[in-house]
Amino acid sequence: MCAAERNEDGLTAIRLTALLTAFEPGDDVLGISELARRTELAKSTVHRLVGHLVTTGLLEREGTSVRLGLKLFEIGQLAIRQRGLVDAARPYLADLREATRNTVHLAVLEGTEVVYLDILRGPDAPTLPSRIGGRFPAHATGVGKAILAYIPESEVEKVIAAGLARVSPRTITAPGLLRKHLTKVRGEGIAYEREESAVGVVCAASPLLDAGGRALAAISISGWADRMRTERVAPAVRTAALTLSRTLQ
Amino acid sequence: MCAAERNEDGLTAIRLTALLTAFEPGDDVLGISELARRTELAKSTVHRLVGHLVTTGLLEREGTSVRLGLKLFEIGQLAIRQRGLVDAARPYLADLREATRNTVHLAVLEGTEVVYLDILRGPDAPTLPSRIGGRFPAHATGVGKAILAYIPESEVEKVIAAGLARVSPRTITAPGLLRKHLTKVRGEGIAYEREESAVGVVCAASPLLDAGGRALAAISISGWADRMRTERVAPAVRTAALTLSRTLQ
Repeated sequence: MCAAERNEDGLTAIRLTALLTAFEPGDDVLGISELARRTELAKSTVHRLVGHLVTTGLLEREGTSVRLGLKLFEIGQLAIRQRGLVDAARPYLADLREATRNTVHLAVLEGTEVVYLDILRGPDAPTLPSRIGGRFPAHATGVGKAILAYIPESEVEKVIAAGLARVSPRTITAPGLLRKHLTKVRGEGIAYEREESAVGVVCAASPLLDAGGRALAAISISGWADRMRTERVAPAVRTAALTLSRTLQ
Repeated sequence: MCAAERNEDGLTAIRLTALLTAFEPGDDVLGISELARRTELAKSTVHRLVGHLVTTGLLEREGTSVRLGLKLFEIGQLAIRQRGLVDAARPYLADLREATRNTVHLAVLEGTEVVYLDILRGPDAPTLPSRIGGRFPAHATGVGKAILAYIPESEVEKVIAAGLARVSPRTITAPGLLRKHLTKVRGEGIAYEREESAVGVVCAASPLLDAGGRALAAISISGWADRMRTERVAPAVRTAALTLSRTLQ
């Protein structure tokens, strides 16, 4: 062991993580040069570290390129199963999809964004850009607003301080407007979202609460603005969220 | 940089992967001592490496313990999305679940085991030990046998050479019997599984084939042996598998 090891293995951990997170939706395989470009590491370093990651199964070789290993899928499923939410929510989501024929989402808040833990796409719903494991600005989504309405104000202020990006012409970008909107959500237990994340798409969301009334996650139903009446599906989402919350407490 | 770096970062990669794969189904958080015990690493090494993994977001702190980070779920979803199978199969699985009220599986072969990529649990089905991201010996499952029947014989022989473990009293453990059974599966396009993975549970599976007729994955319907007639659900599984195969080719 050399004196530099203590620092070196921290650097290695950062570099290995950078290689794993260099993959983006739509990438199938990536070559050494592309990985070097994306991680800003030397090609020789990438070559060596990729070899290590292939050995451990976190990456898989495909010719001279690599792709993310199936082992990462297995570890990732454990990461999410430990939260117990996905398994608990799955039958409720399936029932909501069946009853409404629209698309249902389950999401949690991570910083200023929501991460989608599960999505069941309905036959009558538009093709949405959301994907399982993907992120979206919280303030621009039904699930995000449902969660923001049920967490301490100090945490909401952090989201506001980070800036409310406009992702569609109707996104709520004014802090005062968002605060007022969240008060309304708290009153109804439902967060309506009207073309704020994407033009032509609406959604009704409701939070999953812990015993202390704090949001752990949220579920929603999304559909076409001209075909789905959010007020009509809202009681179904709210009921499912309340029942599901009870099983989580 | 010291002379040992080249070897050191390989060791670090192996140790980091060991820490990530130390988590098992049912674990919520793990402490440093438990991680040291499971990985057979010194506590001081675990402490240092865990710190690095927390920094990169692959682990998350929970008091003095850690759990797998949500980032691993996100990376894991990319690992699987790149295979495109889960998204393509999801609506077919949902329809099969709805039509049969039993549990549907989507799985791929990895070495001698199947890895479950998706599971939709049906209201009439038994609670099965299978979980998304989990593994099971291929020869003992419907999906595994459906895949084994449609890959080159040399690969089937590797599975046989690794040993056909008995996981239930009815598991096919004799190589000759398995070869004969796979010939029958090839003739019908359906792999029946009768209490070979678990007592009281039966299943009908069918392979998803590429343009060359090679199995990429398989789907199945599982139910109680005394309530679900496998011959009755087989045409539905086979039809869904054929249609789905066409979309993948």
